Amino acid sequence: MGCAPMGHILYDEVMRYNPKNPYWFNRDRFVLSAGHGCMLQYALLHLAGYDAVKEDDLKQFRQWGSSTPGHPENFETPGVEVTTGPLGQGIANAVGLALAEKHLAARFNKPDSEIVDHYTYCIVGDGCNMEGILTEACSLAGHWGLGKLIVFYDDNHISIDGDTEIAFTEDVSGRFEALGWHTLWVKNGNDGYDEIRKAIQEAKSVTDKPTMIKVTTTIGFGSPNKADWDAKFAQYEQKYPEDAATLKSIITGELPAGWADALPQYTTESPADATRNLSQQCLNALAKVVPGLIGGSADLASSNMTLLKMFGDFQKDTPEERNVRFGVREHGMGAICNGIALHTPGLIPYCATFFVFTDYMRGAMRISALSEAGVIYVMTHDSIGLGEDGPTHQPIEHLVSFRAMPNMLMFRPADGKETAGAYKVAVLNRKRPSILALSRQKLPHLPGTSIEGVAKGGYTISDNSTGNKPDYIIMSTGSEVEIAVKAAEELTKEGKTVRVVSFVCWELFDEQSDEYKESVLPEAVTARISIEAGSTLGWQKYVGSKGKTIGIDKFGASAPAPKIYKEYGITAENVIAAAKSL
Amino acid sequence: MGCAPMGHILYDEVMRYNPKNPYWFNRDRFVLSAGHGCMLQYALLHLAGYDAVKEDDLKQFRQWGSSTPGHPENFETPGVEVTTGPLGQGIANAVGLALAEKHLAARFNKPDSEIVDHYTYCIVGDGCNMEGILTEACSLAGHWGLGKLIVFYDDNHISIDGDTEIAFTEDVSGRFEALGWHTLWVKNGNDGYDEIRKAIQEAKSVTDKPTMIKVTTTIGFGSPNKADWDAKFAQYEQKYPEDAATLKSIITGELPAGWADALPQYTTESPADATRNLSQQCLNALAKVVPGLIGGSADLASSNMTLLKMFGDFQKDTPEERNVRFGVREHGMGAICNGIALHTPGLIPYCATFFVFTDYMRGAMRISALSEAGVIYVMTHDSIGLGEDGPTHQPIEHLVSFRAMPNMLMFRPADGKETAGAYKVAVLNRKRPSILALSRQKLPHLPGTSIEGVAKGGYTISDNSTGNKPDYIIMSTGSEVEIAVKAAEELTKEGKTVRVVSFVCWELFDEQSDEYKESVLPEAVTARISIEAGSTLGWQKYVGSKGKTIGIDKFGASAPAPKIYKEYGITAENVIAAAKSL
Repeated sequence: MGCAPMGHILYDEVMRYNPKNPYWFNRDRFVLSAGHGCMLQYALLHLAGYDAVKEDDLKQFRQWGSSTPGHPENFETPGVEVTTGPLGQGIANAVGLALAEKHLAARFNKPDSEIVDHYTYCIVGDGCNMEGILTEACSLAGHWGLGKLIVFYDDNHISIDGDTEIAFTEDVSGRFEALGWHTLWVKNGNDGYDEIRKAIQEAKSVTDKPTMIKVTTTIGFGSPNKADWDAKFAQYEQKYPEDAATLKSIITGELPAGWADALPQYTTESPADATRNLSQQCLNALAKVVPGLIGGSADLASSNMTLLKMFGDFQKDTPEERNVRFGVREHGMGAICNGIALHTPGLIPYCATFFVFTDYMRGAMRISALSEAGVIYVMTHDSIGLGEDGPTHQPIEHLVSFRAMPNMLMFRPADGKETAGAYKVAVLNRKRPSILALSRQKLPHLPGTSIEGVAKGGYTISDNSTGNKPDYIIMSTGSEVEIAVKAAEELTKEGKTVRVVSFVCWELFDEQSDEYKESVLPEAVTARISIEAGSTLGWQKYVGSKGKTIGIDKFGASAPAPKIYKEYGITAENVIAAAKSL
Repeated sequence: MGCAPMGHILYDEVMRYNPKNPYWFNRDRFVLSAGHGCMLQYALLHLAGYDAVKEDDLKQFRQWGSSTPGHPENFETPGVEVTTGPLGQGIANAVGLALAEKHLAARFNKPDSEIVDHYTYCIVGDGCNMEGILTEACSLAGHWGLGKLIVFYDDNHISIDGDTEIAFTEDVSGRFEALGWHTLWVKNGNDGYDEIRKAIQEAKSVTDKPTMIKVTTTIGFGSPNKADWDAKFAQYEQKYPEDAATLKSIITGELPAGWADALPQYTTESPADATRNLSQQCLNALAKVVPGLIGGSADLASSNMTLLKMFGDFQKDTPEERNVRFGVREHGMGAICNGIALHTPGLIPYCATFFVFTDYMRGAMRISALSEAGVIYVMTHDSIGLGEDGPTHQPIEHLVSFRAMPNMLMFRPADGKETAGAYKVAVLNRKRPSILALSRQKLPHLPGTSIEGVAKGGYTISDNSTGNKPDYIIMSTGSEVEIAVKAAEELTKEGKTVRVVSFVCWELFDEQSDEYKESVLPEAVTARISIEAGSTLGWQKYVGSKGKTIGIDKFGASAPAPKIYKEYGITAENVIAAAKSL
């Protein structure tokens, strides 16, 4: 990376516009997707007067407790916008940032007031260009015509293993053109800045396509002026008070009072339904009261049930709409949503695919968790319960794999009340991403479940014992809670006392007080059984040494769901047998 | 998908060449990467006389126990080559199959005998084309000049969410051209087969580039004749007995007698070293005796330590070599390796990146496990022990996430003996993929570790008790076994009896007899402590209700490794304190 000219122009043209105020809403966004420019980025932040990057911090590069870690992290260093260590995440973030700008501009700009109006710049290297996630995100940027996205490709022919000749000989500009981008080539980037400045102007003159500028060395950009914008916003507020209030709530992230009351109410009399359908009811109810909710699916909208019925598609010419069509690009989708979430606190992006295909986007999901981006992941077809599509589509190990991921909330709601409860927690958690694992198959609304219970992560939904000492505790999540309840009913008929616990979100349960935990899982009761249509690994934490786990520790099968449940032993009979064996 | 013409030509030109013999080595490979053609594929296999697909099976499509599951699975249905449910895997498999052909042809063909000589065909749809993995794999196919790979793009403008106009408007042929492919367009594929047959001929005439044929309906292909090939091989064997023997062992997958003796021997006197370096010693030793070992890294060869020093790079003009340079394309790399493994039983592909970036390739790794492809995943920089690169590069939840994945062997060796032991098991397991999580930092060779112990998954490496009743059991993996040993030494000095167990591969331990398990983890000993620099989730299974887990349930940090270990409490002092608290 050509650090000298990049440093010069960054300092000269950017930093002096945004000093000490990294969180101004309408600022230009800058993403360093290419690796190994971290020290430069920190040095510039220091020169520009960001308090958090002191001279000592520069000396403490990559050291314990410094604000200058080995890869830039948005939560560690003011002025760093997104977390871009893993290659390709940064450019996809930049697409999300540019999407957010285009969407908000279309919703809030007026003929006499361009209140939202900034560029998104990104520097990518050869490594980013090899990653599939880059092509996924850039294909969408071309499709959406994100004209204010300007990407510099640092064409230096070096990646970690050496010359790119060993593995990367494609025509990068040709690929970007095929993706619908405007491309430019600064052949002589090292000699002076004029050619680079000219290219930026040319990029800005093309407004219906994103621009990729191939340069041998990289550079910076200009930025809108905050003092001007404040005055502009004051005028806007006077003329368009309602829009200004909505935009303000998006900028601050403050949710409207009573927003959670809009969530649908369910009772045991509500018709049985798949939690993916109940999820759609929640999303549609929330979209009416949460102005920043925006999202979509990776080509499975009608399976994931994610369409917001009152809105149209976010497209090139309709960017004010809120249904984003990501195509079959899961990894790009996740990282684009990180960009949206990190653009402005009140934008709440959600995205969707089959739960098993989190395997395609885990890189981006981990960055959601690490960079505190409150993306909501709507993941349907959450177990063997999806049936005939077979083992390639049936998640087994996925629940435990996310339960182990720090700062990620993994929900598996059992019915309508729990689905609404999961959405309530997810919307409130703007610094923790959430995953909702949802069923394809119909589930009854159970007595005892509640929105309040979900907030505790694990809670008793039925119990016929007294004195906090049932004979058995049966614990479960999602579609298997119904089975746990049936088993408890049978055991009760036989004179036993049984507690059923819904463990809808392990992470939240683990955060409760010891007192609360003891009230749900009393130490004295060791006859505990778990049942979940997924890997048993991890359940030992709650069932203890004397308890039994019922689950699936092999791949699934292709057949109607009830048949697979029976063959795999995910049944009330097996819970009863396990209880009696204890 | 245009089923009628595809069916006609497949039956007419392919099936009659390969009837009832799906495992003939030099057959053309056919991969249906596009979804929703499964029933057609099954029907053709039935018509062609594959015993395993009976008329009843066709009626039992997507039903329990049939050989016709909802998505084609190679282990379920003879004649199905690879498992392609998740989009984009199939085309990347096809690149691996074509790589295998080009490599074996370059190694074994003679001027007078083209003993390896077949085409790889693949049908992709719009969905595959949106996936990043497709571009990763196809960029490599272009770079490598895989002239015998012919891909049909079923350009029908339909994906699940409807018309591709909503999310996919790029120039697909333009992108393939930029990736270095030869492209053709059959504009009128429905009217007759002549134009399609002509396109195939044209594709075959271009030998230095893969070909992408865009057609509105899809078709089949011709195939070499097995009777001719048998005669050709007989001649080859006579003229080139040594090469024929090697090729035969690759075809059958039979390993040479005593191959495992080639693995390096380590003692406690061997110099301390990072397990990534010890891994390189093992790989280089194996490459000398295992003729089918081939692989490489995603642009981190010199960090992952995966170069085979006696071989050059597999490249377009040197396909007989065995160091594959995958570039920064993790997902494509994994799926390409699945294709290599499923081409021929004796090809043993390995691939490498930082352990944290398994997040980028998990989709392909799950298919390795599901489709029984014995890929060896060499994953270095396996914990906070990597130090300064910080939390984006430090795995936390990855070990448990793979321990929960069915049919995957997750190894974390503690030293040289265990690294060699892990390779021994991995090479032997041709139907189970293996992951080796390896350290960046130096580790001592410990007394008590052994190649034989690794095969049991968990085993006692030190114990000063008698009668299978130590005061404490300390269990650990990888770089923390050293810490466990230190803590045991301290406790022993204080008069306690302590057993240290290395849990190098949980899956293998779980497969041992109850008797063996009791000999390692006697039920009577409840004072158990685990220590591992990763998520504690799952360890409860072994430490039990009364035990304690020491690990990391948050993201890492950027600092020198010893500092992070201390700050995160991954220390012998903490093990001792935990023991005393029990």
